[in-house]
Amino acid sequence: MVNKFEKDYLVVAQNASGRNMNVPLYRFKGSKPGPKVYIQSSIHGAEVQGNVVIYHLINTLKTTPICGEVTLVPNCNPVGTNIKAGEYTLGRFDPINGTNWNRGYYFDEALVERFVDTVDDEEPLEKVKSRFRKVLKQKIDEKLQETWGLGLAQQLNLKLQQLAFDADIVIDLHNGPVSTRHIYVPEYAKDSAKLFNIPHVILIPNTFAGALDEATFCHWWTLQNLLRAKRNSDINVDVEAFTLEMGSQEVISFDEGRYDADSILCYLGAKNCLESNTYFPKSMRRVAVTLDNYKILYTRQGGIVDYLAAPGDQVKKGQALARVLNVDELENDRASQVIEAPCDLIPILHFPSASVLSGTQLYKCFTDYFELTE
Amino acid sequence: MVNKFEKDYLVVAQNASGRNMNVPLYRFKGSKPGPKVYIQSSIHGAEVQGNVVIYHLINTLKTTPICGEVTLVPNCNPVGTNIKAGEYTLGRFDPINGTNWNRGYYFDEALVERFVDTVDDEEPLEKVKSRFRKVLKQKIDEKLQETWGLGLAQQLNLKLQQLAFDADIVIDLHNGPVSTRHIYVPEYAKDSAKLFNIPHVILIPNTFAGALDEATFCHWWTLQNLLRAKRNSDINVDVEAFTLEMGSQEVISFDEGRYDADSILCYLGAKNCLESNTYFPKSMRRVAVTLDNYKILYTRQGGIVDYLAAPGDQVKKGQALARVLNVDELENDRASQVIEAPCDLIPILHFPSASVLSGTQLYKCFTDYFELTE
Amino acid sequence: MVNKFEKDYLVVAQNASGRNMNVPLYRFKGSKPGPKVYIQSSIHGAEVQGNVVIYHLINTLKTTPICGEVTLVPNCNPVGTNIKAGEYTLGRFDPINGTNWNRGYYFDEALVERFVDTVDDEEPLEKVKSRFRKVLKQKIDEKLQETWGLGLAQQLNLKLQQLAFDADIVIDLHNGPVSTRHIYVPEYAKDSAKLFNIPHVILIPNTFAGALDEATFCHWWTLQNLLRAKRNSDINVDVEAFTLEMGSQEVISFDEGRYDADSILCYLGAKNCLESNTYFPKSMRRVAVTLDNYKILYTRQGGIVDYLAAPGDQVKKGQALARVLNVDELENDRASQVIEAPCDLIPILHFPSASVLSGTQLYKCFTDYFELTE
Amino acid sequence: MVNKFEKDYLVVAQNASGRNMNVPLYRFKGSKPGPKVYIQSSIHGAEVQGNVVIYHLINTLKTTPICGEVTLVPNCNPVGTNIKAGEYTLGRFDPINGTNWNRGYYFDEALVERFVDTVDDEEPLEKVKSRFRKVLKQKIDEKLQETWGLGLAQQLNLKLQQLAFDADIVIDLHNGPVSTRHIYVPEYAKDSAKLFNIPHVILIPNTFAGALDEATFCHWWTLQNLLRAKRNSDINVDVEAFTLEMGSQEVISFDEGRYDADSILCYLGAKNCLESNTYFPKSMRRVAVTLDNYKILYTRQGGIVDYLAAPGDQVKKGQALARVLNVDELENDRASQVIEAPCDLIPILHFPSASVLSGTQLYKCFTDYFELTE
Repeated sequence: MVNKFEKDYLVVAQNASGRNMNVPLYRFKGSKPGPKVYIQSSIHGAEVQGNVVIYHLINTLKTTPICGEVTLVPNCNPVGTNIKAGEYTLGRFDPINGTNWNRGYYFDEALVERFVDTVDDEEPLEKVKSRFRKVLKQKIDEKLQETWGLGLAQQLNLKLQQLAFDADIVIDLHNGPVSTRHIYVPEYAKDSAKLFNIPHVILIPNTFAGALDEATFCHWWTLQNLLRAKRNSDINVDVEAFTLEMGSQEVISFDEGRYDADSILCYLGAKNCLESNTYFPKSMRRVAVTLDNYKILYTRQGGIVDYLAAPGDQVKKGQALARVLNVDELENDRASQVIEAPCDLIPILHFPSASVLSGTQLYKCFTDYFELTE
Repeated sequence: MVNKFEKDYLVVAQNASGRNMNVPLYRFKGSKPGPKVYIQSSIHGAEVQGNVVIYHLINTLKTTPICGEVTLVPNCNPVGTNIKAGEYTLGRFDPINGTNWNRGYYFDEALVERFVDTVDDEEPLEKVKSRFRKVLKQKIDEKLQETWGLGLAQQLNLKLQQLAFDADIVIDLHNGPVSTRHIYVPEYAKDSAKLFNIPHVILIPNTFAGALDEATFCHWWTLQNLLRAKRNSDINVDVEAFTLEMGSQEVISFDEGRYDADSILCYLGAKNCLESNTYFPKSMRRVAVTLDNYKILYTRQGGIVDYLAAPGDQVKKGQALARVLNVDELENDRASQVIEAPCDLIPILHFPSASVLSGTQLYKCFTDYFELTE
Repeated sequence: MVNKFEKDYLVVAQNASGRNMNVPLYRFKGSKPGPKVYIQSSIHGAEVQGNVVIYHLINTLKTTPICGEVTLVPNCNPVGTNIKAGEYTLGRFDPINGTNWNRGYYFDEALVERFVDTVDDEEPLEKVKSRFRKVLKQKIDEKLQETWGLGLAQQLNLKLQQLAFDADIVIDLHNGPVSTRHIYVPEYAKDSAKLFNIPHVILIPNTFAGALDEATFCHWWTLQNLLRAKRNSDINVDVEAFTLEMGSQEVISFDEGRYDADSILCYLGAKNCLESNTYFPKSMRRVAVTLDNYKILYTRQGGIVDYLAAPGDQVKKGQALARVLNVDELENDRASQVIEAPCDLIPILHFPSASVLSGTQLYKCFTDYFELTE
Repeated sequence: MVNKFEKDYLVVAQNASGRNMNVPLYRFKGSKPGPKVYIQSSIHGAEVQGNVVIYHLINTLKTTPICGEVTLVPNCNPVGTNIKAGEYTLGRFDPINGTNWNRGYYFDEALVERFVDTVDDEEPLEKVKSRFRKVLKQKIDEKLQETWGLGLAQQLNLKLQQLAFDADIVIDLHNGPVSTRHIYVPEYAKDSAKLFNIPHVILIPNTFAGALDEATFCHWWTLQNLLRAKRNSDINVDVEAFTLEMGSQEVISFDEGRYDADSILCYLGAKNCLESNTYFPKSMRRVAVTLDNYKILYTRQGGIVDYLAAPGDQVKKGQALARVLNVDELENDRASQVIEAPCDLIPILHFPSASVLSGTQLYKCFTDYFELTE
């Protein structure tokens, strides 16, 4: 191989048979220095397409010399991948207690503040970053060693976060229910959105809600802000983290996976991870929203739904999004009811089953979206 | 309305809150005599498209004069429809004990034999049929009254069977997992297969496996055979029963529903259920198999599957059906494995999730199929 | 009846068949004025014993004259009660998205602050309380009317909260997995803990985590604090809210229910809800902890567990709590492993299944507990 | 060790991560000849107590010289053990398709008939048995190699059956839902029932319903019958198979496990499996039923159940078995309803959850039972 290659396994859990459950780690090291990249997939067990993307990335990295290091972690949640209920995979939350597998990462603003107190004006940024990584990873170590233990999802998340926190670039590969491609980008890294071949962009603030991308960039963003204030200079920590949502859960496609692998390689190329870059982002219309304009439309009624608007469509206010059948009223006017768009919007994803109760997340939609200029 | 219309509810169960769970019944009666038709949908809770078909049938029957009677029973399994596990519907079996909701109907060959002993050579066929219905429905009544009770799925099935056994035409509306249109037809009614607009036909023998169509035609077919032997004449009881599989579970489409409603109306028109028929089956290629040539292909390995062959495709022996990803071997030759067609076949349906264990029903396929001539 | 009695139903959801799901309301009104009491049960669907307690309370209130009003809401979560997965009830969270059914109530500290700004020094406390109720219920109304809708659990919670917020006394009846009796009491109402016949008491601070008791007392406690500060006087809003955990989920006992109904009547008697009180709390040892000393012990290993310490036992540091079997090592020293108490403690509840993964909530325990003096 | 000991693993499945799932095998071989014994546990994933019994058996066999061979297979269904849905284990059926994990073993009466045709009058019984084993195991091999594959449960069952069919004694360790000890015994081995310390005995006929004990004894019983007829002599094939139900699912107890291990050792001792037997069955009352008198009582109503009769109780006709609460009628006569015993009976097990729908298996009962004389 053109890069150094290592393969390893990380034990993340034990099942009820007392057996270790592990996660494969694939690591490529270039002969030249460069950013450290961490990419994982399938923290939600039914969102499996990321594994195909990693398969294609590995194939590319066998023959493409890199600068720095790329760690690839497919199938990072062996518990979630393997809980079937009916034919589908109960992969979004721990089937025992309902805990979302993507909400137990660690962020501690106070720790960043205390850390910045230990930084003097002379300490070089690289040393600051290296010390910061050490402090945070030690803190996670302590949590993992707590006398009373930790919940399974949190253990899993923290073990992965320890790997991810070494990286300068963190990419978490997800899928939506029935979904079109979209990406979560921290506002400070907005320009990077145009380096991927993804038409829908959600810009997120420096607020932690438990996910890996946030657990990464909230620490670094907060550090950067405090250092800038302290040193009164335009310091840039140069760490970015993204959640990529590459279409629908419960399906894979080797062909689509090639598209998304190339999209990631465009970004990595632009970030100087490749010795000689041949991947360049497509020219395409990219629309973005701020997180508060990425809205969930819930059903008011229960029933059986025909999803009329496809993910990615541009829908006008008042236009039909869905039509709900009511089996008790098939002979009269209430047999079916149309759910209309409450404003101009782009549906990004919809619920994957026709059968819904009241209060179901029917659609997630871009509202007040705007075009990202190239 | 041009026909007499009645609406009713059948109580089929009580839930854990002690509340009745009921099934809506819609009944149209024409002013002229004719066959009795019974159509139900969604005995498997995730197979919801039949409800849309019944919606369209009701709309048509509001303005189309019929001969005889049509009973429409959408959403006939209110338990199965409402068991969610994750976003999907756990609708194929009772979540408590695994009992398939479509295997508890009643067939008793010995009862038919005893009944035929009571038929003398003079009794007119219509009277024989009417007595047979009475005897069978009384037997089901007794079962429903058993001192020790009955399991929920069987209770549900028997209550529906009592309605269905009055009919001359029974149609049970289903969907496959990810599926193309196909229909189960008893061999003796093979000619009727061409009256529907359904390209794939499974011909089934006089063997009972628990489903509603079988519970209907096995009784009548056995009766007909015994009467023919007894009277040495070519008696025809003129009862037909079908299971229609109209595409995939977990989705509905009002447009596709119109197609299938029209297909059923073609059959009903040909069977003299409409006063003035305007529905005629399409000219199309129809291929058929005998039940023993409708084969299940199981996975040997677990993994993540890209379904390469779409339901309805003609696939040659050795051609790739699916490609399975193995996340532990992404860097070597075992990263993906192709599953090939063991013979020439048409995949009719495939498993609805990419994630499979070993021993999963990957595809159900037509093998040794032949064309039905028009 | 000696009290006025009304019965009603509250529609809280619609199921996938499009049918309303409702909750029964039983209301007793005394002829004399007095506190308003609200008692609900089974917000977690597998915690059904509270329904039996309400059954006994209703029997008592038929013949026991009350002051004020008592509203009883059994089986308040018809969705959670009816989701079976295997023989058990998947009742603690929404099976679709993992949302805990007891975390979507509403608390808004800023709203209390804004409200207190509208209170002048002359306004009598009863009028303040009445206006506060109106403001909060209107706010909840607005949330329930939001254009984009609300999730099912939150809708359910808010509809119940609107009923509960009228009350001066709110009691939410729960069960633990395998559990002994315990009660959550807000610190300011610590004295009331001794009015119930419950030996284990958890004292909780003015911190909102989503549950009904908190959504009640956090609003009132905050209001009281702000009013005290504003008026510089020892104002008492006289609203209390409790979560009672009455033993194990998945079982009921009419006999045990009588005990808990009497326990609640002791409290109500002491709070002047009964015209002539004949219910007095038992003399018993009551031990209490602050919430931060109510600790979860998680498993480190997966395996099959023999729970050696029973809920309610006093366990010494180092004593065996559980013994875990490892089926892969049955012939050697690692066949079984003892989990020891990390400090002196009382186990209050344990996980209800022998089969555990790593990171399972094995026990919840009182540590640093103290006796409540009578 | 006093016996030769081997440990091995059998791969029985691959999970959705593509990883092998295996079953541990523990084998003891004595220095003297004797019967071959096969004992497995936990084919139903929530029935885990058998693993503890095997743990104790292993401890005993380390120091107790045996004649022949004992194979112990704990946790024989690694899929079923590890499917959690809520806190409990969805272990009785494949969560994907509802297939009972204990119904896919193989029995083929015709194969036995064809085999007996190959036996001449001179062939010694031991050679007949050895050839029979070979023929059957080869047949199972062929099934496992079928071009189109096999379902997961059947694959698992057949792989275990190949191990078990070598044995002269097969014991399958199960638990009931909430249950007292009972044992399934083939009628021809009725005398062996008294060799275990189990008070409730179900005598089963030579009828195959899919379970391991049946798949074992139906083959041998049929062979014996055919050989007896053919040779007109009282041939005894000396193979016995039992299903032991050792109390309730979802719990383990090391203490209770010792009791059941000793009970099995009593039987093994009597069957000359131990060099020097020190285990003798207790003197106790043992009651038995024929299979058709082991009856299921189903609920007519849904609701919340207080199980009044405990497993093992002697209940008279008309006596209360259970009391069902109806939350919609708490103020009137229909608040609770008593379910009475339809005849004199002993409840052996009951449903493990208070929440039941109509048509739930409430109790399984011995009726028309009789005492086994010692």
